[in-house]
Amino acid sequence: MAKELKDLTKRSENYSQWYNDLVIKADLAEQSAVRGCMVIKPYGYAIWEKMQRQLDDMFKETGHVNAYFPLLIPKSFLSREAEHVEGFAKECAVVTHHRLKNGPDGKGVVVDPEARLEEELIIRPTSETIIWNTYRNWINSYRDLPILINQWANVMRWEMRTRLFLRTAEFLWQEGHTAHATKAEAEEEAVRMLNVYAEFAEKYMAMPVVKGIKSENERFAGALETYTIEAMMQDGKALQSGTSHFLGQNFAKAFDVQFVNKENKLEYVWATSWGVSTRLMGALIMTHSDDNGLVLPPSLAPVQVVIVPVYKNGEQLAQINGKVAGIVSRLKALGVSVNYDNADNKRPGFKFADYELKGVPVRLVMGGRDLENNTMEVMRRDTLQKETVSCDGIEACVQRLLEEIQQNIYRKALDLRNSRTMTVDSYDEFKEKIEEGGFILAHWDGTAGTEEKIKEETKATIRCIPLEGDRTPGVCMVTGKPSAQRVIFARSY
Amino acid sequence: MAKELKDLTKRSENYSQWYNDLVIKADLAEQSAVRGCMVIKPYGYAIWEKMQRQLDDMFKETGHVNAYFPLLIPKSFLSREAEHVEGFAKECAVVTHHRLKNGPDGKGVVVDPEARLEEELIIRPTSETIIWNTYRNWINSYRDLPILINQWANVMRWEMRTRLFLRTAEFLWQEGHTAHATKAEAEEEAVRMLNVYAEFAEKYMAMPVVKGIKSENERFAGALETYTIEAMMQDGKALQSGTSHFLGQNFAKAFDVQFVNKENKLEYVWATSWGVSTRLMGALIMTHSDDNGLVLPPSLAPVQVVIVPVYKNGEQLAQINGKVAGIVSRLKALGVSVNYDNADNKRPGFKFADYELKGVPVRLVMGGRDLENNTMEVMRRDTLQKETVSCDGIEACVQRLLEEIQQNIYRKALDLRNSRTMTVDSYDEFKEKIEEGGFILAHWDGTAGTEEKIKEETKATIRCIPLEGDRTPGVCMVTGKPSAQRVIFARSY
Repeated sequence: MAKELKDLTKRSENYSQWYNDLVIKADLAEQSAVRGCMVIKPYGYAIWEKMQRQLDDMFKETGHVNAYFPLLIPKSFLSREAEHVEGFAKECAVVTHHRLKNGPDGKGVVVDPEARLEEELIIRPTSETIIWNTYRNWINSYRDLPILINQWANVMRWEMRTRLFLRTAEFLWQEGHTAHATKAEAEEEAVRMLNVYAEFAEKYMAMPVVKGIKSENERFAGALETYTIEAMMQDGKALQSGTSHFLGQNFAKAFDVQFVNKENKLEYVWATSWGVSTRLMGALIMTHSDDNGLVLPPSLAPVQVVIVPVYKNGEQLAQINGKVAGIVSRLKALGVSVNYDNADNKRPGFKFADYELKGVPVRLVMGGRDLENNTMEVMRRDTLQKETVSCDGIEACVQRLLEEIQQNIYRKALDLRNSRTMTVDSYDEFKEKIEEGGFILAHWDGTAGTEEKIKEETKATIRCIPLEGDRTPGVCMVTGKPSAQRVIFARSY
Repeated sequence: MAKELKDLTKRSENYSQWYNDLVIKADLAEQSAVRGCMVIKPYGYAIWEKMQRQLDDMFKETGHVNAYFPLLIPKSFLSREAEHVEGFAKECAVVTHHRLKNGPDGKGVVVDPEARLEEELIIRPTSETIIWNTYRNWINSYRDLPILINQWANVMRWEMRTRLFLRTAEFLWQEGHTAHATKAEAEEEAVRMLNVYAEFAEKYMAMPVVKGIKSENERFAGALETYTIEAMMQDGKALQSGTSHFLGQNFAKAFDVQFVNKENKLEYVWATSWGVSTRLMGALIMTHSDDNGLVLPPSLAPVQVVIVPVYKNGEQLAQINGKVAGIVSRLKALGVSVNYDNADNKRPGFKFADYELKGVPVRLVMGGRDLENNTMEVMRRDTLQKETVSCDGIEACVQRLLEEIQQNIYRKALDLRNSRTMTVDSYDEFKEKIEEGGFILAHWDGTAGTEEKIKEETKATIRCIPLEGDRTPGVCMVTGKPSAQRVIFARSY
């Protein structure tokens, strides 16, 4: 077994260490020389590119277009929306100068004090402010609405404790910013994008999610309502995977964006914003992977099938090469991405371990006996099951298997979530159960105070008020006051 | 005629103003609230996305993969390579703090002096330093080479005089950074990417370019050799459109990146870097557009065909709608992007002017008589010629026309360049001719001093030492000293 695999911590030993090991050893990302900022390595970036492409198609299908707004935001813009500045000011990277000069000792460079900016600029932590300042000039009448814009960008939040993909100072994301003539239309848009995110998570990432609404405590800074998709990781912790915000007229008021409505009256514009980030990489890894390495959904795997020859000599390899060439081209014709690895500087055992670590969904092996029998050994990464199948029609068999893996890992994740979702009615039971991890459905009186108390005493937060499922009222497990419906509590990433 | 068109300055009146007007009125980009930083609007971004997709495919076909490195670079990294810091230190955005706090008067926010960074960070003007600092850990042996990585990113250079797309403080680009075991392989890579850029410019942008080598004065800060593609704009000025650098072992030495070669000896790694940016948008606009607006090559036009109905009443519109629906779906099946604009809030005349302004390559119009005759009016944007054609087989006709437009605008640009490229032998003639614009092929003695003198006296620089064409030696037009071959002089953007 390859050295790297031996070094991968087992999930049961230390889930957190297993995650860190895996991100590094599967060549997904690493820490950079800059505190909290990561390098996304080619294999990790290839997965992110597949996510981007799929999301971008879905945004365009729902009528959105891409644009690009500045990286830097004047400091004063942040203060315009009271809650927004409260939420982001404490973690901003601030640009104060625009020039370096030679150091006094002739060595190195120092900041040139004469190149101080009149107003400091911050690196965008999110772009509502600069975008709404721009929209002011674009919107005059209801005829200019809606504006349905998305941006793919890097953003920066100076987090104190960082973890690769899950929480980094700089991360990559998309942020949608839409402008509407009516409240109803903006609310509809926020829900539409929540549904796009949920569909993406379930269909492409094979990751079941709960759609819901955030409590006031967990709401986006400046939003009237935050919609969220919440996923459960294998350790029972929740991971917020995407959010969509109904911003009301908050940013329109802060940046004075008014329009003449159909009744010829001036009105403030209604807004939404919504985003997912490279954090989804963390969610993907933690939802499916195992002690042997990554498990990737075929929909997002950069390489779906790897073929490895096992041969005694050059002559046999040449025969295998010839046989495999046809299979490779037929798989490609079916739209399957395939890599034939006949490199002679690594042994088959090393390759097997490496492709397991990298999460390639299907492995095909052809050895001397297979050559005689017109067969190949097929291994599926999700269950590690092997089977010997005939080369005739193997392409269709592989295609079916890819679909089956996609469905199987979704079902597996769903089963885990179901098995670790509990309904609890007393606070004592809650305190006991929350130690085991998982989602707890409990009644809550709807107040920030009770939520704070629970968080302090148990480290659990309200992940969301679910939009689907049981919505019968009851009484709060802590205060006994009325509760509109059960909400989901969990510890989270 | 629509208001916007009347306001577009004519090229003959003021080429520079025409360009600025066009970028704004065609909804490509605008200045933002942050000095020198632009907003790329959806229509402009859609063109950039088409460029990106095509370039990305070409990079992948030549074996490159994408990755992502941090936005911020420790200040000290810049100083490691002497020429590099000289080239970039004077235009760096510098991050000095990581937190804001409430202002003393309770209003607004101020920089928190306690959140000063130990070492300042600069926003990447280019990423050689952070990338080579990372490569040090990735490269041990010749088996780890080559590394063929590209990054799509935003970068920042604090330019004092900015122009939309052509020179902005923040811009979008791609930067390839490759690492090789031998000098020959790195040189080959630099030339390979020069050829990729030239192919992209000529085949997709329909923009003829001269491939050449930069003189020492114009070389990238830290490179041993800079390859360039140079295009001629309609005003006779040159625009550097893409560069590819052979970096030798400069960055490997600065960041101590060594590898064990096949002979088991330690050696510094050989490097290249290469990039194109949103500046290409400026090149595209200035190469083809005219006094009516944008002219876009069909290969990069977000919408290739627009169809406009001209109708008397709702009944007639319904008939046209029915007829056009089939044509739209047949065009889409051929891979043509088409927009049927039957919006009733704008008159046909307005639509015509607007699509001309936006550079949609082909316009189809169906009116009442066309309906009777089973015809449509076809207009091509490049020549503004109209023709009435039968609806039968119109899809194939449109497809051929798109190809013809692509070729025609390339030829037109090539003819212009040829007609404005002169061979000059005396410095007096040079001074006279350079006032007329265009490329001047002249002999130069190869020294930086002579180049400086010419630049000071005529504002012309050496755009490149061409790799193709006449390469016979001669004598320098200024000093009479020997010249290896003619080089291209021009005034430039």
